[in-house]
Amino acid sequence: MTEPLKNYLVTFFPENKTITVAEGETILKAAERADIYVNSICGGEGTCGKCRVIVRSGEVQRHASSLLSEKETGKGYVLSCMTKILSNLVVEVPPGSSSLRSSDGKEETSNRFNSFSDWDFNDTGFPLDPPVRKFRISLPPPTLEDNQDDLSRLINAIRRETGLDGITAPISILRQLPDLLRDSNWDLSVTLADLGNSREIIRIQPGEASGGNYGVAVDIGTTTVVAHLVNLETGVTLDAAATYNSQISSGEDVIKRIIRSEEDGIDPLCRAVRQDINNLIEKLCLETGVSKDEITAIICAGNTTMLSIFLGITPRNIRREPYIPPLSDPPPIPAVQADLKINEHGMLYCVPGIAGWVGGDITAGMISSGISRSPVVSLLIDIGTNGEIVVGNREWQLTCSCSAGPAFEGSGIACGCRAVAGAIDKVDIPDRETIRYRTIGDDPPIGICGSGLLDAVSELFHAGILGRDGRFDMERPSERLIEFNDQPAYVIAPSSETADGRDILITQGDIDNLIRAKAAIHAGIAVLLKAVDLDRDDIGRVYISGGFGNYINIDRAICIGLLPDIDREKIVFIGNGSVRGAKTMLLSREALKQAREIAAATTYFELSTDNNFMDEYTRAMFLPHTDVENFPSCGGKEVPKEK
Amino acid sequence: MTEPLKNYLVTFFPENKTITVAEGETILKAAERADIYVNSICGGEGTCGKCRVIVRSGEVQRHASSLLSEKETGKGYVLSCMTKILSNLVVEVPPGSSSLRSSDGKEETSNRFNSFSDWDFNDTGFPLDPPVRKFRISLPPPTLEDNQDDLSRLINAIRRETGLDGITAPISILRQLPDLLRDSNWDLSVTLADLGNSREIIRIQPGEASGGNYGVAVDIGTTTVVAHLVNLETGVTLDAAATYNSQISSGEDVIKRIIRSEEDGIDPLCRAVRQDINNLIEKLCLETGVSKDEITAIICAGNTTMLSIFLGITPRNIRREPYIPPLSDPPPIPAVQADLKINEHGMLYCVPGIAGWVGGDITAGMISSGISRSPVVSLLIDIGTNGEIVVGNREWQLTCSCSAGPAFEGSGIACGCRAVAGAIDKVDIPDRETIRYRTIGDDPPIGICGSGLLDAVSELFHAGILGRDGRFDMERPSERLIEFNDQPAYVIAPSSETADGRDILITQGDIDNLIRAKAAIHAGIAVLLKAVDLDRDDIGRVYISGGFGNYINIDRAICIGLLPDIDREKIVFIGNGSVRGAKTMLLSREALKQAREIAAATTYFELSTDNNFMDEYTRAMFLPHTDVENFPSCGGKEVPKEK
Repeated sequence: MTEPLKNYLVTFFPENKTITVAEGETILKAAERADIYVNSICGGEGTCGKCRVIVRSGEVQRHASSLLSEKETGKGYVLSCMTKILSNLVVEVPPGSSSLRSSDGKEETSNRFNSFSDWDFNDTGFPLDPPVRKFRISLPPPTLEDNQDDLSRLINAIRRETGLDGITAPISILRQLPDLLRDSNWDLSVTLADLGNSREIIRIQPGEASGGNYGVAVDIGTTTVVAHLVNLETGVTLDAAATYNSQISSGEDVIKRIIRSEEDGIDPLCRAVRQDINNLIEKLCLETGVSKDEITAIICAGNTTMLSIFLGITPRNIRREPYIPPLSDPPPIPAVQADLKINEHGMLYCVPGIAGWVGGDITAGMISSGISRSPVVSLLIDIGTNGEIVVGNREWQLTCSCSAGPAFEGSGIACGCRAVAGAIDKVDIPDRETIRYRTIGDDPPIGICGSGLLDAVSELFHAGILGRDGRFDMERPSERLIEFNDQPAYVIAPSSETADGRDILITQGDIDNLIRAKAAIHAGIAVLLKAVDLDRDDIGRVYISGGFGNYINIDRAICIGLLPDIDREKIVFIGNGSVRGAKTMLLSREALKQAREIAAATTYFELSTDNNFMDEYTRAMFLPHTDVENFPSCGGKEVPKEK
Repeated sequence: MTEPLKNYLVTFFPENKTITVAEGETILKAAERADIYVNSICGGEGTCGKCRVIVRSGEVQRHASSLLSEKETGKGYVLSCMTKILSNLVVEVPPGSSSLRSSDGKEETSNRFNSFSDWDFNDTGFPLDPPVRKFRISLPPPTLEDNQDDLSRLINAIRRETGLDGITAPISILRQLPDLLRDSNWDLSVTLADLGNSREIIRIQPGEASGGNYGVAVDIGTTTVVAHLVNLETGVTLDAAATYNSQISSGEDVIKRIIRSEEDGIDPLCRAVRQDINNLIEKLCLETGVSKDEITAIICAGNTTMLSIFLGITPRNIRREPYIPPLSDPPPIPAVQADLKINEHGMLYCVPGIAGWVGGDITAGMISSGISRSPVVSLLIDIGTNGEIVVGNREWQLTCSCSAGPAFEGSGIACGCRAVAGAIDKVDIPDRETIRYRTIGDDPPIGICGSGLLDAVSELFHAGILGRDGRFDMERPSERLIEFNDQPAYVIAPSSETADGRDILITQGDIDNLIRAKAAIHAGIAVLLKAVDLDRDDIGRVYISGGFGNYINIDRAICIGLLPDIDREKIVFIGNGSVRGAKTMLLSREALKQAREIAAATTYFELSTDNNFMDEYTRAMFLPHTDVENFPSCGGKEVPKEK
């Protein structure tokens, strides 16, 4: 006979919320049940180190982890996912461990992902002609001589008005038609959705009906989900909103999500992201006064795995050679089939993707950047959890995906965090003795985000604290250069200045991570250029897409070897190219058509089986690169060790 | 204060079933609640006389009705819909009042409506190419070089196999695809539905999957619903089933159904007929062993009102000038949208109609008869609750609808009944003193059905009992020529021979009804012929469609002036042309396409506003006609009065 488990009380601070738990439950599970948000991006595997909490009193079963320093362990820090409750407890969740909570994250996500004021549809060069459009139409009333049936009368009038053929309607619209035609005195507003091969009447209203016609463009990122609300009649963006992808708790990267979908089935992940999107729609409606009934179209862009999961289709084969996605160009479907809460007949469009590892977000970036309509050979670099690269012009396009890892998103980094309030996003080291940093929102620092990490590495290198090989120069000791978990580490913000009283530092491992990430991207670019026999001087323009991109210092990104060393003038930040491209397609059938053509025509390079890539990658594992001559503007002379 | 109503017990015989009722409830309502079937085709308005029952004991509040003779009233007969319960009762439902019950009517419907053995798809002249087809397909497995996504791989293979473009799939099929492709080793059976502008994959199975691909063709008649189960791969009909349209209790004809749909909303009528169809499908599956999953297509033909109600769309404007139907050519929709229980992705097709009063059943009749593919000018006469007429050939077609009234279906006739067991369907009067009749199933007579009525009138006329003006010759008395409800009537079966002991007779009113019906059809034919400047000698062929048609004696039908007097050789019975035509379309996209073309091209004549029609109608109110020379083979000499 097994002894029955005991129950204990756990109180969480700062919320001062108490919950009853069974002996042996983990603190993370208890927090979840108490509705206390604790970060967790590895899915509770004890590997991300994001769920650290402080046990103030009580007995727990700890799990040793290199993600906690001795000093932290001494202060009571534990990884909540690996720590079992053995008595009544008092637990404190430090600020850095609850920074992903989306309800709290409004300010941050607004700043970083929501910017839309610098985008104007008229600049895209595409005609305003959305796949779902609304127009008013007057029909000749029937007579004994002109005795066409109601539906044919309407369809013929639409054909005359728009030149469109193959018009149909769902049964529930047909049911409304006879009375509406007569009640409105044969004067209607019709909303018509383009389904590719046919067109469907998805809404009919009396001619004088008020209310507009709106659409939502969504970028389903592995980390962040962004939605823009657009007026389909004017092309104007009304508002934008963002939230963290709730799937994060099942794993921080695409591979982890795929594995989780195989273990637990796809439904939990699918529901999570659909709920995220519905929450964003709810929020956008609330803030703009637009009703869900008026939203007749939604378009989603995302990497192939995110889109598959969103559609409820297993992505399992994407991660197995030969890396086959279930689909690249999902047909338009009624949004209700994906549980999206918009107009009951509203349509869901998906931006077509290119391959298992280059999705519709990149197609959208190509539309957004204009790379595929320009005679100039350009480079598109999308830096997210993965790094995708396109090189091409209006005649040809090549693409590849590099497993950059999540370092640029502050993940897998000792003190890494996302770009939320309190994140260190900028670091200056004017000389070896001075260090200055900036935090988002000027809050007390809670960690270091991607752009802060890039800045720090670049500045450490320039100050001579790091060598070309990315190793700390241990021969020149400094107060800030300390030992942390058996490796060298450099303190950016000492414990006295930080939100939770622990040092914010960069370890040798963090630097190795960043160098691997930048080397992967550099190597991807090199492989694509070599494939078409071009070099960096042939590149007319470089487009940087992704939330991270917007906040990096170009000079520093070049001088660590992330970006190719070309005229700074040629480098353009396009913000979230995925949501912008999706929005363009939501407003122009021509853009959606071009996206399909580009997605089908773009050549995909599988790097995992490419020997060239391995060579390039190895050569890029230095700062800025093995071949310094590739970075003339950074100059051999600037490499401190060689001075 | 109102006194509370008393409760009484009512016992129904022959069921010997007792139910508690509130004082004042009608016997019909009580029977309904007791699940005792009592005919009622006027919707409880006291006008059809079909719901007569015998009150054996107890007190009721009667309602005087000319539909009951004094003799009947004396025997305790009442109209159950107009009779209120004032005490405990014992009620007997005579056989003639429960003859519509479909569970009892199996034999009859099988005999009369289900015949399919004389039909062979190969005789239709159309290629076997159903709109929903199933085929096996083998895909090349993907490799690193051939790394198309699963959906594109499948679509491209289908395109190669079939030459078809615009292929899509619902999300639930997409969800099955990745695993199915790999589990089946890239060898699939695909079921593909033609949606007109696009094609949808509606079923995928492993290549070696057993099970077939079946379709159901349905004729939704005002009175009878007929369904045939067809093998879509071979064109063979497996089985057929029929049932009465449950809407009958809301009124016997189209106008009454429309009025009821306006009073009570369309949903009860819509649900009723959908349930009828589902019951037939259930029955067909049970009898053939085909599973519902294997039924991937259903096609429905019916008059415009029946089809509108079935789709849940108000038919109200059909009965108001300018008689506009809500739709004539419903687009293909998922059958589940019409609550039909077949494969979850199975498609519903509807046969396109021509006008508010000439529906898809007539288009189907044109396909079935081949009238629109023949160089010969032909006539199609569909005799149901309404009479529809088409004249034309492969180059042109004209059509009209005549309100013949339901006399041919035994309705609105004193002793009329449908063609069920016990119905008198054949009458011979070799001389004035002899009468012979036949009943369906040789059962004791319960009433007289349409073909019996036609026979009787023709024979009464030939025997000189009726004059050319359709009046009884009262100068030559006979035992059988009696007074019934203040009008002359002729006894066909005396009370001693009948099932419920009352005389089965034909009244002067019945004869007037029949003459009006045949005059309407004759006038319709005359108007159409005149419109194209043809006369009866130009008609190469006459097709008679409708359940009634199959059972009439051609000579007699001509000699009362129902059919034009032409070579008997030219007259062809095509049975249920509606279901046969629908079945042809279910098996051949070419037939469905032709049906659309014919329906759009056929010219509709609105008779209700045509002066010519009134003239012709008046002239046809004699036996066989005012102008005897139009009926040379019947001969002036054969008209008894003129002898």
